[in-house]
Amino acid sequence: MNSFGTIFRLSLWGESHGVQVGVSIDGVPAGIPLSEKDFEHDLARRRAGAEGTTARCEKDIPRIVSGIFEGVTTGAPLTIVFENHDARSADYSDLRKLPRPSHADFTAAVKFGGHNDYRGGGHFSGRMTLAITAAGVVAKKILGPEVRFSTSTAEIAGYFSSVMQSGVIESALVEGDTLGGVVQCRINGAGTGLGEPFFDSVESTAAHLLFSIPAVKGVEFGAGFLGTLKRGSEYNDSIVDSSGRTSSNNDGGVNGGITNGNTIVVRAAIKPAASILKPQQSFDFAAGEPATIQIRGRHDVCIALRAAVVVEAAMAIALADLKLRM
Amino acid sequence: MNSFGTIFRLSLWGESHGVQVGVSIDGVPAGIPLSEKDFEHDLARRRAGAEGTTARCEKDIPRIVSGIFEGVTTGAPLTIVFENHDARSADYSDLRKLPRPSHADFTAAVKFGGHNDYRGGGHFSGRMTLAITAAGVVAKKILGPEVRFSTSTAEIAGYFSSVMQSGVIESALVEGDTLGGVVQCRINGAGTGLGEPFFDSVESTAAHLLFSIPAVKGVEFGAGFLGTLKRGSEYNDSIVDSSGRTSSNNDGGVNGGITNGNTIVVRAAIKPAASILKPQQSFDFAAGEPATIQIRGRHDVCIALRAAVVVEAAMAIALADLKLRM
Amino acid sequence: MNSFGTIFRLSLWGESHGVQVGVSIDGVPAGIPLSEKDFEHDLARRRAGAEGTTARCEKDIPRIVSGIFEGVTTGAPLTIVFENHDARSADYSDLRKLPRPSHADFTAAVKFGGHNDYRGGGHFSGRMTLAITAAGVVAKKILGPEVRFSTSTAEIAGYFSSVMQSGVIESALVEGDTLGGVVQCRINGAGTGLGEPFFDSVESTAAHLLFSIPAVKGVEFGAGFLGTLKRGSEYNDSIVDSSGRTSSNNDGGVNGGITNGNTIVVRAAIKPAASILKPQQSFDFAAGEPATIQIRGRHDVCIALRAAVVVEAAMAIALADLKLRM
Amino acid sequence: MNSFGTIFRLSLWGESHGVQVGVSIDGVPAGIPLSEKDFEHDLARRRAGAEGTTARCEKDIPRIVSGIFEGVTTGAPLTIVFENHDARSADYSDLRKLPRPSHADFTAAVKFGGHNDYRGGGHFSGRMTLAITAAGVVAKKILGPEVRFSTSTAEIAGYFSSVMQSGVIESALVEGDTLGGVVQCRINGAGTGLGEPFFDSVESTAAHLLFSIPAVKGVEFGAGFLGTLKRGSEYNDSIVDSSGRTSSNNDGGVNGGITNGNTIVVRAAIKPAASILKPQQSFDFAAGEPATIQIRGRHDVCIALRAAVVVEAAMAIALADLKLRM
Repeated sequence: MNSFGTIFRLSLWGESHGVQVGVSIDGVPAGIPLSEKDFEHDLARRRAGAEGTTARCEKDIPRIVSGIFEGVTTGAPLTIVFENHDARSADYSDLRKLPRPSHADFTAAVKFGGHNDYRGGGHFSGRMTLAITAAGVVAKKILGPEVRFSTSTAEIAGYFSSVMQSGVIESALVEGDTLGGVVQCRINGAGTGLGEPFFDSVESTAAHLLFSIPAVKGVEFGAGFLGTLKRGSEYNDSIVDSSGRTSSNNDGGVNGGITNGNTIVVRAAIKPAASILKPQQSFDFAAGEPATIQIRGRHDVCIALRAAVVVEAAMAIALADLKLRM
Repeated sequence: MNSFGTIFRLSLWGESHGVQVGVSIDGVPAGIPLSEKDFEHDLARRRAGAEGTTARCEKDIPRIVSGIFEGVTTGAPLTIVFENHDARSADYSDLRKLPRPSHADFTAAVKFGGHNDYRGGGHFSGRMTLAITAAGVVAKKILGPEVRFSTSTAEIAGYFSSVMQSGVIESALVEGDTLGGVVQCRINGAGTGLGEPFFDSVESTAAHLLFSIPAVKGVEFGAGFLGTLKRGSEYNDSIVDSSGRTSSNNDGGVNGGITNGNTIVVRAAIKPAASILKPQQSFDFAAGEPATIQIRGRHDVCIALRAAVVVEAAMAIALADLKLRM
Repeated sequence: MNSFGTIFRLSLWGESHGVQVGVSIDGVPAGIPLSEKDFEHDLARRRAGAEGTTARCEKDIPRIVSGIFEGVTTGAPLTIVFENHDARSADYSDLRKLPRPSHADFTAAVKFGGHNDYRGGGHFSGRMTLAITAAGVVAKKILGPEVRFSTSTAEIAGYFSSVMQSGVIESALVEGDTLGGVVQCRINGAGTGLGEPFFDSVESTAAHLLFSIPAVKGVEFGAGFLGTLKRGSEYNDSIVDSSGRTSSNNDGGVNGGITNGNTIVVRAAIKPAASILKPQQSFDFAAGEPATIQIRGRHDVCIALRAAVVVEAAMAIALADLKLRM
Repeated sequence: MNSFGTIFRLSLWGESHGVQVGVSIDGVPAGIPLSEKDFEHDLARRRAGAEGTTARCEKDIPRIVSGIFEGVTTGAPLTIVFENHDARSADYSDLRKLPRPSHADFTAAVKFGGHNDYRGGGHFSGRMTLAITAAGVVAKKILGPEVRFSTSTAEIAGYFSSVMQSGVIESALVEGDTLGGVVQCRINGAGTGLGEPFFDSVESTAAHLLFSIPAVKGVEFGAGFLGTLKRGSEYNDSIVDSSGRTSSNNDGGVNGGITNGNTIVVRAAIKPAASILKPQQSFDFAAGEPATIQIRGRHDVCIALRAAVVVEAAMAIALADLKLRM
């Protein structure tokens, strides 16, 4: 449910318009220097503000409430909380009877008998990724500086060039529409031997985390779906030296679920955000008839932009847990 | 590692050329009629024999060794084993020093200090999917006949038409090469409310299992990667009645990680099998220099054909566990 | 580590002298009315103040920071925090080099390389039982009013009578010494069929939780250790009607790890608190020689008094999780 | 349910009169020499035959069916099975309607809707401890020879002397009655730092496993229940040197849930076996009225004798898992 991991284990909580979003992380080795400042860089990458992102602007200041003593981790659970400040609940008061298309409004209401906090998606909000981002910072500390992440929103609505991306964002913004994208994360220096046989492979562990990020609808490693077009003789990555270096990297750095020392390559498909400003068809559960829904509030044109650091965090979490299990 | 699930929990074991492959399933409700005969249909779907599949032909007769009494499940662990008979270990004797490209030979040796059973991939063999297939049969019994699976190898090397697929298989067979493919699974009747918030979403649970199947390198739900090309106004699935039925199904039956009652759609990218008969470059770890490897033995031209039932089994296992958690 | 449970799953954090103690509870069914007021009764039972308890007097006001909306649980994680106010860290500054006998000072320092928060025992403090007590309140809500708990400190230093108990407490207080005791918890109305075969029996699940309470050194069910003095013909509980009612209850309401409908009876041995005011022998790790330690600060004479509600909470948590797994 | 452990993880299956009893162990490090012969010593300790044990005499020959290659463990799941041969099912045919007092017959039938395999207790049989004993052998290999176990049936029906124990066994045998006992296990050489804070303490992990052994009704560490009679000043274990050695050992080698380097001492109360030959009162669920039950078959007079090695195995399993988590 809301916890994940075998040794490096996170439990998260919170709602979009509740008191706070938080995460408690178990299994953090003792003795790692850590302060609130360490979170700034990644939180800034996730923060709204750039072109294509929401006008809701939480400061997102992390507060470490356990697990730190004299500036280093203690080995006890490390807990980080973010208070919610800039929530405008009134914007969401109709969602109970009129669920937003492609949102969790309907499924959450069914699952929880209508008791879910529907404001801003409640627990199903993208705001929960704050907790993932924070945990990712801790995970990277565990992995150490030799594990290097290079993550970007490689595609927006299918466009690779930043000029075209900028143009399509502007047009969608004007139209009150949203855009999908693909986040790509490349990881160097993770070494060989990470990953456990069968169910806890690198791919399984990472995909489990990645698909828990709202809006992720596809995950692929290495050549992924395009790799199915190749023949084995074109696809196979030949080992060229005793370190396991390969001449190509169609497998994205993972064989049999275990890292082979080459660059880990993962791509995540981020669907266009469901909250568009254009009127849409939905069903009025109070009236028992179809109705038009007009979403208001402040939303992202392209969440794939802000999702990049979250995808990176998920990969860091997966690798940190697998490293601690070795 | 080798166990998965919260309530419906599998533990599997075995090696390609060991004594047996087996799976013990915990959490099976008592009172379900079950016999060895129930496994025949799905095992036949996984079995070699058709065009494009290996000539190694295990009978794969399941033996239930616990959890059944008087023809029904007892509530105690249900254990199913398959003895290995038709293994020819001599075919694999060089893998220790000369790992096959894009196989787990190198990573397994690194991880297990050279103690892994390398014969036929050992524990990393596709033969382990026998256990998944068997567990899938039990999972479908738990889901009941109202949950209907429709699974096929939708693409082979990018071809959708069976004529073209047959042609490309024949050509790859002649060349001693292998082909990738995409398995698509559509599930009707699973109802609403399956899936748990955040980490144990339908997508996360299913992807975790799917990526543990050897050769799966990509997983997508609904419109998946193609969905990133759409705008929100095109992508969003409008609810059209009080049951939650939607006019389109880009989300593949899942919102916020929870089933919305529409068809669940999942696609898995299956890479071309690594075992090709063409000579390949690899590295001779004994001699410390590059060397040519020539794989012998009996192999599949297109494992995506036999993987279809395994993908279906993985989906059934994921849904059965989520159902039992409700 | 710091999380427990299969469906009703707690994660806790905090230190004696840190910012806060908290618990996040996953798997709480939606729709349960709950407010901060509901915690008052059990928190008061745990609170210091009575004869034999510490003079440190935290108000222990719970704050629900997630999982509640419009007065009922939402199905999302329920998180409860307690801020620390009345901590006097200066009292503990010598523990780093001079560990208190029978405390976790030495073992925590070894395990965490000296990075543990040693103040007041840090994460190993009895203050963590606040989180257990709070989770117990939620667990009892899930079990419903038909499950009735009757818990008491049955023995103090071997004495059953309250007059004698009062006398021995007074004498120990004067001497700066501490007393052990036995907490007994009797549970009616839990019904039949709770508990899972083999590892997740009622006894295993409950004992796991009970032994995580600091100072618990023994746990027994039904006749427990005394039951080993009986012959089978004296011990066996004869079933007397179709509900499973038995003529005796030596098994304490559990057979084969599963509740049989009779009163569940459990007893927990609570050792005398390690913090005594008398001078003791210990070892000065800075000087490398034996030294006398004189503990100051405010402590309990008999923690078994305050532990009663914690034992009850642990039992409620165990039963709630087992109930939700049925 | 039927699996346990975080890294060293067992899954067990089987029934008293089914095909086999088995255990699959995940997380066994690669490279440990292991053969069927290694199990002989501990299996012999568990085997019937001595005074006070059942006449049912299974050969209990272990068969390793996965996880071994060329005489050493491979890192893949290690699976060990025991076929059942000497079962006489006819002896048990009445248990369905007339449950044995203090057995799991009634609770298992309630829990599993009457579908449980009732023969000889089915999955609730003491025969399942074969799997624990085998897993214990593997656990001890992981711990290495420096961890030394000394385990005995310290008390039988309250008697400590072997002469008195022999006498009381003889008398119970003649009367068709059974006896309880206490198994004590002392472990040296486990070192410091084993055990995880809060829920996965040494005591919690060990007690979880110990209480899953059929007939265990009490567990205590160090001075345990008797320790509650002492004052803190008598109970506290003073540290006398820099290795953490203590002048007394009332805490049984564990502080704050973590080993302190001193002898780990644990005691388990084993109730008198429920199967006595004397006629007993029970309830005939078919007739709906009280009835006399007369158990036949071959049973143990004092299962505490055969339980000693099982208690030791449980402790070894707990410590091995905690060691692999460090």
